[in-house]
Parts: sequence; structure tokens; C-alpha cells
Amino acid sequence: MVRIGVLGCGNVGGALVEMIGDRGPAIEDRTGLRLEVTRVAVRDIAKPRPPGIDPALLTTDTASVVDDPEVDLVVELIGGVDPARDLILAALKSGKPVVTGNKELLARAGAELFEAAEGAGVDLLFEAAVAGGIPIIRPLRESLAGERITRVMGIVNGTTNYILTRMTEAGASYAEALAEAQALGYAEADPTADVEGYDAGAKAAIIASIAFGASIVADDVHHEGISGIAEVDIAFAKRMGFVIKLLAVAEQTEAGAICVRVHPAMVPLEHPLAAVRESFNAVFVEGASVGDLMFYGRGAGGSPTASAILGDVIDAALNRHKGSHASVGQLAQAVLRPIDDVESAYYLNVEVLDRPGVLAQVAGVFGEHAVSIRSMEQEGLGDEARLIFITHRAREAAVQSTLRDLRALDAVDRIGSVLRVVGDDL
Amino acid sequence: MVRIGVLGCGNVGGALVEMIGDRGPAIEDRTGLRLEVTRVAVRDIAKPRPPGIDPALLTTDTASVVDDPEVDLVVELIGGVDPARDLILAALKSGKPVVTGNKELLARAGAELFEAAEGAGVDLLFEAAVAGGIPIIRPLRESLAGERITRVMGIVNGTTNYILTRMTEAGASYAEALAEAQALGYAEADPTADVEGYDAGAKAAIIASIAFGASIVADDVHHEGISGIAEVDIAFAKRMGFVIKLLAVAEQTEAGAICVRVHPAMVPLEHPLAAVRESFNAVFVEGASVGDLMFYGRGAGGSPTASAILGDVIDAALNRHKGSHASVGQLAQAVLRPIDDVESAYYLNVEVLDRPGVLAQVAGVFGEHAVSIRSMEQEGLGDEARLIFITHRAREAAVQSTLRDLRALDAVDRIGSVLRVVGDDL
Repeated sequence: MVRIGVLGCGNVGGALVEMIGDRGPAIEDRTGLRLEVTRVAVRDIAKPRPPGIDPALLTTDTASVVDDPEVDLVVELIGGVDPARDLILAALKSGKPVVTGNKELLARAGAELFEAAEGAGVDLLFEAAVAGGIPIIRPLRESLAGERITRVMGIVNGTTNYILTRMTEAGASYAEALAEAQALGYAEADPTADVEGYDAGAKAAIIASIAFGASIVADDVHHEGISGIAEVDIAFAKRMGFVIKLLAVAEQTEAGAICVRVHPAMVPLEHPLAAVRESFNAVFVEGASVGDLMFYGRGAGGSPTASAILGDVIDAALNRHKGSHASVGQLAQAVLRPIDDVESAYYLNVEVLDRPGVLAQVAGVFGEHAVSIRSMEQEGLGDEARLIFITHRAREAAVQSTLRDLRALDAVDRIGSVLRVVGDDL
Repeated sequence: MVRIGVLGCGNVGGALVEMIGDRGPAIEDRTGLRLEVTRVAVRDIAKPRPPGIDPALLTTDTASVVDDPEVDLVVELIGGVDPARDLILAALKSGKPVVTGNKELLARAGAELFEAAEGAGVDLLFEAAVAGGIPIIRPLRESLAGERITRVMGIVNGTTNYILTRMTEAGASYAEALAEAQALGYAEADPTADVEGYDAGAKAAIIASIAFGASIVADDVHHEGISGIAEVDIAFAKRMGFVIKLLAVAEQTEAGAICVRVHPAMVPLEHPLAAVRESFNAVFVEGASVGDLMFYGRGAGGSPTASAILGDVIDAALNRHKGSHASVGQLAQAVLRPIDDVESAYYLNVEVLDRPGVLAQVAGVFGEHAVSIRSMEQEGLGDEARLIFITHRAREAAVQSTLRDLRALDAVDRIGSVLRVVGDDL
């Protein structure tokens, strides 16, 4: 029998307590473990709860749940850095395994928490922190433990994927698609954390830490959001056989330098990530031996996330019973590759005055910075013209210098989206 | 330090030994484990081997590898039932963890092997037995341990997926696509095991055993192959927004009855499995709480399979170090649902004489067996006509009775493909 204390009883916590009630007998048949939720910390005791939750278990005192001698294992679902950090550290220190879905905390203080778990010899499991119900942390940690992972590309934010899907499939503008996502409860009133890539960035930091065995924090992640994506970009992407996705990319060079970034990108239609629609998530993993893998599913929502939490609870409970624990291993100090050094093919949308010689002038700027043009399309806009360039692989720094010099040209009116292009050489 | 004995040194074994050499230092940094291959059993000592394999390790005596006191962990890659079964049992009995990719053996004698491992208190891991490099067994066993899995649908045979992809995308006939697969080394000279679904069936039995915690063997699996798929079926699928895939389906009713089957099916283009092309594999999992998940990657090949084996080796080595082991849990006796009771929507291709009244006669047969028609298309074929029916959900037994009575009609010349249709109610 394993007695579980749950901190936080919102969508995920509520679904978890109900799932443990429903699935308890089947889990006991299979594993011999009896799971029992003995304490649940909530913010508001008076708030109505689903029928599966015994009101007698509720308390507003989170620390009392962690300290309770009748709690063997702690599930942390309150989110944020404080007080989650201290509660988790206290639980680990007292020898209680912890299961959490707290991406913000892990992306800020993961190394400290992993060390505390290792020191106490207990589990700290966090499958739910990245991509909700999709098993990705355990496969990276265990199944791919022998693999040299070269790159991970994830669609790990359902809100932005929903917005981009609606822009692509229903022809909605960014503002319309955002409003729709807000009406459906996918996006917050202040959507910054989602649309500017901060949520995806926290997940990217966690993925990179596990994939490369190095300590990466949220501040190490380069961010670009989707709020500047225009309908014209969506249309050009379609015409050229791409779809625009917000990607969390973590990659490591053979020499060991790591770059972690979040940005929208043009994904070729034949790439498996292109078929990830609506609010679904997917994580695409490239390994030196295993080749390409993809893990697809629901990245959020009470039930899918609770399913991931419960998988971790069972694992931690079994390990506790065996006197064993999983470990993320020794996280090395990360050698970060500056974003300026990273190479990619690019899509650039440049609005220019429609007069003779402009294209030559613009092309000249590309040439000065050794950014090679793979294709160009021109579209008339009255007195102006839109030039859409796809470049060959180029260094970020060279592309930024090109943009700076283009902006300085009289003939250049405006530079729209600048998007990386996924291909043989993203 | 963990000393590894490898039985079999073909594509996978060779790649594994090389990978352990290459990745050894990184694995040691991360986990503290030093992996060393100390013995390798081969059929022919004289055969040239890759440079990473020290000839001094080779022997033709498989039993001596298992018995060697300098071997702590055994990797079985010789395949087939005998002598693999006895070698694995001997290793387990002597307390040595075993990693295997032997689907044939597991689908025949899994329960016996799991019991032996449990009895000896050591690991028997087999990620590589299903879908090569794709982590699917560990996610099912651990990440989804708390989930009620309702259905698993897998594209788990790369040969048939390649053949069907070529028929769909290049307009090849079945015979042409098969010849191409044979030329590329994807298909054997005798392709029966692949094209008739036996290889996929063994994997389906293993998946079902783990997903539902019940003992399922290869003989419990209903098989239909792809050799009867005609170009006309491919063309109709395309026109109606489907693609034909060979699926391994394992499902469990709420009451607990299990049905495991392999058959070609019409998959809607918007389904994630539809985008799984060429020789790639994918396993689509439907869970009551987690919703839809998909695991995608390389289902075969030396390096991807070796990567899965190595992940298991590291896991087993870590567990051995901790004095712990993973467990598939108690496998219940399976309650099998007869294929006759299984319901699905169907595609039927019926060639009839082109004369008045035939359609009414044919439709009457459907009606007699309460098989409801969702749509019908008619295509002229000279003196004949082809009728393509899509039915609503119907019991297999009713469809079989319908087919029997249709065949008895004078006006029915031939019944072509009968394919299940994946939808809300496959």
C-alpha cells in the first residue's frame, strides 16, 4: 500500500484522484500495489469538487501534506516556483518520492531538484512536465539511454499549434485564431507565455537537459514567438509545400555544444511534424543510431496529464517498494552554442518599392554577407512588391547582418516574417 | 562494470557491439556503468566482421556464453524458438538478466519466460521485439501503467508498409511493389511471413499481452494479408480519402474481452497513421484517459534495433546494480473475443453482371443480414460492373454471411477485396 499526498486539486489533480479511484483495482491486480490518496492540499476548501474526492482528505496547509507521516509519496501539481520548490525539497529530504508536472520549476531549478532526489535516494519523476500525456521523458531517459541524440524538435505548445492550424486550414488571421483559442479556453486572456514561446521554452530546456545529460535552464533558451506571422506567410508556406509550426528545438553538435531555441519554422508537408494538427503535441527525435522517432499525443488537459502523473506514481511506488529509484544521471555543465553561430535555411518576406534595380540592390546585400539565395518569388503590391526569399543554409549572424543592411536601404519598405526552414539542414 | 555476452552477431548484433564501443564512455559518464562485451556467439567464426568486433571474443558455442562466469548479462539475437528459449531460460535461472529482440519466441512462450524472469528476480527486457527502434514496450509497461488502454493499432511491418506505399504513391501493382521490396532487401525471397501478416501478428500478440496484462500468443491472432489488394482498391481508397495500411489491432472491450488481429484496412487521410510512409512503423494507442498517442520510427534495421537493445541493456545493468528488476506484472488468462463478434465498417468490392435488377438483388442480400450500406459507387467494366460498398458498422459474422450469399448469386461474378474501414467505429 502506498499513501499519496496530492498538492493541488485543479483539472489535473481532480482527474488524478478520480483515476486512482477508478483504476486502483486493476493496478493492484497487475502490480500488487494498492494506491490510496490520503491527503489533498487545495487553495479553497469550500470549492465544489468532483464526487470521487472525499472532502475529509482536503486541507489548505500544503506543508502538512508533505510532513504527514501517513503520506508516502507526494504529487506536486500547484505549479510555479514558490512554494513548490521548497515543498518538493522537503518531501525529498524526508525520503518521500515526488511526482511533478511543474515545467516552470524544473526549467528553473531542475539540477538542484535532481541532486536533492539523488542525495535522498528517492524518485523525482516529471513525465507530465513536457507534452502532457505523451511519454517522452521516460523514453529519452531510459529507452534512448545509449543513443547519441543529435536533435529534438517538438510541437510542445497546444495553444500555438491550434492558432497556426486555424490560420492554415480556415484562413483565419492571427488575431481571429487567437480569439478563437481564447474562447475555447486553449489560450489565456494574456497569451504571452504561449504565443511568445516561453511555455515551449521551459519544456525545451527540460527536454535538452534529459536528451543531452547537461543542465539547461529556461534562460538558456532563445525565443521567437508567432504573433508576427501574417496570412501572407501562411499562404506562401502552403504554396511552397510547407506548413508553419512553432518548434522547440534542442540540438547538440558532435563536439558537444548545445543550442536550445523556440521559433516558428516552415516544416515540409512530408515531414511527420507537419501532420500534427489542432492542439495536439509531438516530439520528433533524431538519433545517430535510431534514426527518426516521433512521439505524438495530447499535450495538455486534465485526463491526459493525470494519466502521465499516474504512470509516474506507479513507477515511483514500485521503486520505493524495491528500495530502488530512477536517476537522471550526472548532468554535465552545458556548453552553449551562441544563436549567432547556428545555421539554418531561412524564409524572408521583404516589402520593397517596385522600381527597376531594387532586386539587384537587395540581392547585393545578401551577397555581401555570403547568404546564398535558393529561390525568390516576387509579388506585386501596387507601388510596392513583395519579395519572398528562401536561402540556403546560412549562419544566424549573417542573416541578421543582411536584415540590418536591408532595412537601411531606401528601397526597402518593411521586413516581414523571417522564418527558419526545416529541411536537410535546419 | 557489466560484462555482456551476445548471442548472434548479424546486423543487429554487429551494430550493438560497435555502438557499445562508441558510446561506452558517454554511457559511463552519465550512469557510472562500464559496459563491456566479453563474449559473442556466432554461427561462423570465419565470416568477416566489422572492425569494432574483437575476433578473440567469438565462439560458436552459445551455451558457453550463457554459462560463462565472466558474463553478467545476456543479449539474445539469434531469433526463432529453439535454441533461443532454452538459452534464455538457462541465463535467467542462473540470475543473469536477458535482453532479447526475439518476437517469435515471445509471441509463442512469453508467459513462460516472464515467469522465469520473475522467479529468478532478474530483468527480461524486449523493447526491440516490437517495432525495432521505437520505444513502445517501455511506455506501455511503465508510462501507461495506470491507463485503461482500449485499443492499439500498429503499422508494425515495414515490408508491407513499403509495398502499400509504393502501390499508393507510384501506382505500382502488388507484384511490382513486392519485387521492388525484394530488390531493396526489405522483403525475403519467400515473403509469406510479411505479406500474410504473420510477422505483424507476433508483434500484435506481444503488444496485446503488455497493453492488457493478459497472456496472448501468436495463435490467438486472426490474420489477413495484403497479397489480394488490387490497384482498383488503392484507387478507390484514394478517391474516398483513405489510404490502405496493414494494421495490427489489439483491442479490449470494457468487459475485458480481447481481440487481436492483423488485416489491411482503409485509414482516413487525416488519421496520424495515414502519414506513416515507406518502411516506417508506428503504433497508435487509444487510452480512456490519455486519449490518442502515436509512437513513430524505424521498425527494423541493424542500428535502430541495436539502439533499442542498448537502451534495455543499460536499464537491465542499472537494475542489476541496484538489485532490482522490472516486471511485466501478473499476466491474466486472456478472454478472447471471437472474430465473428467483432464489429467494423467494411469496404467491399463486388463484380457483377451489368444488367437490370442486379443492384436490388445485391442490396437485398445485405439487407437480409442486417448489414447497412453507407455508400455505394458503381463503375462500368464492359459487360460487367464493379460495385464498391462502404457499410456501416457490422458484425464480422454478418458480413461473412453476406459474402457467402452474394457468391451464390448468378449475377455476382467475383468478390474482390473486403477491407475494414478505420473510423469512429473500426
